[in-house]
Parts: sequence; structure tokens; C-alpha cells
Amino acid sequence: MEVKARAPGKIILSGEHAVVHGSTAVAASIDLYTYVSIQVHPSTENDDRLTLQLKDMALAFSWPIGRIKESLSSLGGPFPSTPTSCSTASMKLILALVEEQNIPEAKISLASGVTAFLWLYTSILGFKPATVVVTSELPLGSGLGSSAALCVAFSAALLACSDSVNVDMKQQGWLIVGESELELLNKWAFEGEKLIHGKPSGIDNTVSTYGRGGNMIKFRSGNLTRIKSSMPLKMLITNTKVGRNTKALVAGVSERTLRHPDAMNSVFNAVDSIGKELANVIQTPAPDDLSLNAKEEKLEELMEMNQGLLQCMGVSHASIETVLRTTLKYKLASKLTGAGGGGCVLTLLPTLLSGTIVDKVISELESCGFQCLIAGIGGNGAEICFGASS
Amino acid sequence: MEVKARAPGKIILSGEHAVVHGSTAVAASIDLYTYVSIQVHPSTENDDRLTLQLKDMALAFSWPIGRIKESLSSLGGPFPSTPTSCSTASMKLILALVEEQNIPEAKISLASGVTAFLWLYTSILGFKPATVVVTSELPLGSGLGSSAALCVAFSAALLACSDSVNVDMKQQGWLIVGESELELLNKWAFEGEKLIHGKPSGIDNTVSTYGRGGNMIKFRSGNLTRIKSSMPLKMLITNTKVGRNTKALVAGVSERTLRHPDAMNSVFNAVDSIGKELANVIQTPAPDDLSLNAKEEKLEELMEMNQGLLQCMGVSHASIETVLRTTLKYKLASKLTGAGGGGCVLTLLPTLLSGTIVDKVISELESCGFQCLIAGIGGNGAEICFGASS
Repeated sequence: MEVKARAPGKIILSGEHAVVHGSTAVAASIDLYTYVSIQVHPSTENDDRLTLQLKDMALAFSWPIGRIKESLSSLGGPFPSTPTSCSTASMKLILALVEEQNIPEAKISLASGVTAFLWLYTSILGFKPATVVVTSELPLGSGLGSSAALCVAFSAALLACSDSVNVDMKQQGWLIVGESELELLNKWAFEGEKLIHGKPSGIDNTVSTYGRGGNMIKFRSGNLTRIKSSMPLKMLITNTKVGRNTKALVAGVSERTLRHPDAMNSVFNAVDSIGKELANVIQTPAPDDLSLNAKEEKLEELMEMNQGLLQCMGVSHASIETVLRTTLKYKLASKLTGAGGGGCVLTLLPTLLSGTIVDKVISELESCGFQCLIAGIGGNGAEICFGASS
Repeated sequence: MEVKARAPGKIILSGEHAVVHGSTAVAASIDLYTYVSIQVHPSTENDDRLTLQLKDMALAFSWPIGRIKESLSSLGGPFPSTPTSCSTASMKLILALVEEQNIPEAKISLASGVTAFLWLYTSILGFKPATVVVTSELPLGSGLGSSAALCVAFSAALLACSDSVNVDMKQQGWLIVGESELELLNKWAFEGEKLIHGKPSGIDNTVSTYGRGGNMIKFRSGNLTRIKSSMPLKMLITNTKVGRNTKALVAGVSERTLRHPDAMNSVFNAVDSIGKELANVIQTPAPDDLSLNAKEEKLEELMEMNQGLLQCMGVSHASIETVLRTTLKYKLASKLTGAGGGGCVLTLLPTLLSGTIVDKVISELESCGFQCLIAGIGGNGAEICFGASS
């Protein structure tokens, strides 16, 4: 039988960088997903393999189950209901398996994702032969939470295969994972993220995991609060494709804060107020179109303000400015999302904006060499789908 | 005998807009001047005239002295040592004289300057026949304080003609007006400014008047503090030539503050901290080149931060962003100066920057249709020069 899972990417609506200095930030899931399908094969004597296909990259990795068992038997899976961290010793064993696959030099950044996969797979499912296929609508490494979506989708599919997730098998299509299992799923995904990012904040996987009951996350000083959007919200996401050095950008803001503590602390306070206001606007129901437009205008203003403050922190970039100038021509508000210094830019698409304008903006941005995606904001979290067994 | 006076324009180094909401702002004079020369003619029976030539505009206005006397005798000048405000009744009389001159429709904005001239002239010198010539290095109405420089130069030249200014007549070249007469000069200039701007802040004329003893002004909540720069500072001033509606921009910031009081007050606090820091950097002596470079870098960072905060207030403009992007390519820091929404942009030119780079930046900016000026910051204030009588 085939089990599919999908998990959404995320955007930061406000508060990136400032959150490191104690300000409120708001993140939301987007309706662009990473998909994982798992087909567990019946065990045979000789030819049992675990195969991982990364469809978008046209890459496949495959290990004989015997080789994995021999190498990782000390890990002691399956233990789907008790998420644990991968020890340094285990990581070394897994890395050896990954290295055997000779990942092309240009794609070497994928190695950490393959490592996370092997850890999650053996921990949750043990040593069953299977074919796992990954596809994604999220550009990699551009701040849209692609690695968290991958870990959440892996975990969801694996937990579904291990019968650790209760879903109504008779239903068709995408099934929302039950609230009670989401915590387990989120913990596993976080363990995967740790193998990819070292010290992830846990925000990306949390946003990607949770849906319906609260599809946005307000976070401040390590406290995450799930909040529920009460308005439709559509964003144009422009991927500048300019690679960023997140660590250097974060360090740059900290250094600037040391040089100008008073000014920067006021800036962080301003971002904090913006985050709180933004969360309020999004949570308050809009009874009619008029108030929806007013809310959209408020969000646009808050985005513009947040962008100015990010520029004040020194994390903008010429490519980001190009996107801002282009969208401003059409009177659309934009802000960078994530670390800045390149990466992605959000542009709010108001409900009454004509498709013709959207097409014009997109074609102008694409002519600059940027990639444009349109995303609904604040959708469901992790979902599972059961296909016919082959 | 010919008396010449010159008075400098100004830039706002930090704090525009935020100053309206209680933040510290810093303004400085620049070494671009408005020049006024007055040649008082010996009185004759019939042909006595007062002529005002605006050389840069190729415009000249001329009134028979008899006509001025008949119209303005109620004003009661000359009273050079007691600056008074122009009453509404007097303004009406002066406006009638200005209207007689049929200023071309396209230059009608000059009418208020001509009005200020007639008020200052008759108040300080009474009804002497003279030829007054004005030239200026300052673009009009672009936020560089051209009207204040005009009023200060008028007042300085007129006070010198009326023997109300003590200067060593034996000296040659530009003579700095004595500290004791500067207050009188500044008051007259402020009365002129009132006829041009209605309710001027008094900052522009104060910056233009005072020199040497304190060539920059730190101001907050109506309190002006003269401060002395202890470092050479050169700016590229780019005039976008985009006309601004200062009132609408100021109102826009106030409205945004009403909508987002917490965030905007933090923004104003940040601007306040930046202004104080900037004043400190400029006042602290730099004992060597190394510390001069460090100070320049600090100023650049403060300018970049202030610009981000101005963007947060919503007063930037596509033309300003174009200047920012262009100068950023050469790693130069810029900020808008004045009201924003167009107007002028400052770019710090570090002492070690090569002339080749400056030329490149300028030619790139000029190819966008902008006007570029290079100005030294914080020079002398009002100065007087006595020429040979003709």
C-alpha cells in the first residue's frame, strides 16, 4: 500500500532578526507543499532495498536493507512513539551510508536531508524495504522552510506507515492528522531538522505540522503561540535566488546592536509592536468586504514598516530592493521574509487586485531573473493520503 | 559702494519628520551659497528706482522709489535694529507692489521671495534707491534651505548697508559677521522666512546665519543647540527634482502614528538615539586618519539606519530608492534629507574615496536625470564683503 504525506512551507510575516533580540514574530504556513510517498515492499530473501527518490532533482539513492541493518542495528528502531535525538555516534554511522551514495558535488547540500531521512526512517519504521519518493513545490534554501516541510512530511508518512497515526481509512483525499498525534509528529520532525540545521528554532517544523486549529505561530523569547487566521490572505513570493549567509546576517544585526544599543533596541520594540498588531489584524474576523479591505491595507502598511526596520538593521539587499521598487510601481506592499540579504520577498496580493496586474508584476519580476510563486497563507498543516497498494 | 553678502544652504543630517514628534534632529550648513549684492545709488530728483535682479532666473523687477514710498510709508522704516513682523495689512500693500511686476505664471512661486525682499528692504533701509542682485548655488524648493539662505543674505547685506553690522572695513574678502550682530540678523531673516513659509521652524535661517562658533544645530522640541563639527565632512547631494508636498508628507507620518502609536513611537525613539549619537560623533575630535575613518563608517551606518526608519514612516519615494541603489553599488551610504517623497538625497563621500569613483557615481546619477552637487558640511554662516563703489 502507498502512503502519502504532504507538509507546507512557511513564511515569516513579521519579526525576523528582531525575534533573536526578544521581539514578537509571526510565521504562517503557505499552500506550497513538500510531498513524500512511501511504498513499503513485502520482504524477500535477497533483493530488499530502501530507495529514496528526489524527483525534482532527478536523483535516487538506494541501499540494500541488509547493509542498513548491519550498519545501524545499534540504533534499535522501530520506536515510533518515542522521538529521540540522533547521537553523534549514530550520525557518524548514518553519514557513512550517505557517503556511499556518491552524491554529486553540486548537490552535496542534499546530504543532510538524506541523513535526516535515514534517521527518521530507521527510527520510526526500522528496517522494512520500501521506495520513498519526494517532490516539492518549495524552492530549496530560500527561507521558505523547505527542510522543515521535508522532515514533517517524512515523519507524517512514516508514522502513518507505522500505524501510529489514527485516520479514517475509509475517507478519500488528504486527511488532516489528528490533533493528538501532531505533537509526536512535530517532535520527530524537529529531530530531523536538527540533523539538517544543527540548532533549529523549532518554528519552521511547528508551522509546517499544525493546521486548522491554528495555522500561524506567534513567537517571542522561545514561547510559541498558535493563532488562527480569520481572513483569506494571498502573497506573491519572489525568490531572488540570491544565496544568503544567514549566520553572517544574524551576526551583523547583533554587532550593529552592540554599536548602537539605544537605537537598535527601539527598532526591536517597533518590530515587536508590529508583530502584535499584525497578529491582531489577522485574528480579528472581517464581517464584510469593506473591513477585509481595511485589514489588507493595515497589513500592507505593517509590512512596509517592517521592511523599513529591516533595512535599518542592515539586512536588505540590492535584489530585494529591486523587487520592492517593481511592486511599488503597482502600489503593492512588500517585505523580505526570512534572513534577508537575498532570499525571498513577500508581496501582499489584495483580494480585489485584478489578475492582469498580478500577471504584469510577475512577468516584470521574472524578467529580472527572479522566480515567482503565488501562495495562500495559513492553510492546513501536515496531511496524509492513502493510495491503492501496488 | 557695493555690499555683498552670502549665506549657506542647509541639510538635515538626521531626524527629519521624527523631530515633529519630539525626536532630536541635526542640521548643518553646506558650502553652497546664495549671494546678494546691494548697490545703493545716490538719490536724484526723478529717476530713483529699487531694482531686484534674480540672475539665475534671468528676471528683474523694478519699482520707482516714489511708488514704494507712496505705497508703504505707513510701515515706517528704516528701523534696522528692531526686527518686527509684517502685519497682514502691510503684507497686502507689499503684495500689490509685487503684483504690479507681472511675474510670469511659471515663476509665480518666486512672488513670496520678492515680498520678503520688499519687507526686509524697506524695514531695514527705508526708501533708498538701489540695485540688488541675487545669485544662488542652491536649487530652489528642494529642501536645501534656499529661501532661508536668501532671507539671511538679504538681511546681512541690508544690515551692512545700514551700518548696523560692525566689520573691519579694511579687511578683504568674505568677512564673518560678528557674533553680537548675528542674533539681529537671524531675527530679520526669520521675519522674511515667515512671509515665504507662513510658519517656518526657524531652523533653516538659524543654520544659515551662524557659523564658526557652531556650524550645526541639534534641535529637539523647539530647543536649538549650536554644535561645532570637529571633522571634515563632504556629501554628494543628489537632487531628484521630484517635487514634494511637504505638508502632505508630514500629515502622512502623523496619520500613520495615530494608526500605529506603539510602533511609531519606538521608531521616533530610534531616530532620537541616532540624532544624539550622530551629534556626538561629529563633535568628538578625531586625532588621526584611522579614527576619522572609523567616525565616517559610524556616520554611514547611522545614515543607513535613519533612512530605513524614514522608509518605515512612509516618506521615501521611487526616485530616492534609485539614488540609494546606485550609491549602494559603490558601497556608499545615503539617506534622504528633508521632507522626502522626492527632493534631495545625501551620500557621504569618505575622505579616502577616489575621485574616479565619485565621477562614476555622479555620471550614473545624472544619467537618471538627477542633479548632483558636492558640498562641504558645516561651514561658516552669513558673511559680508565690501566691494569698490561704482
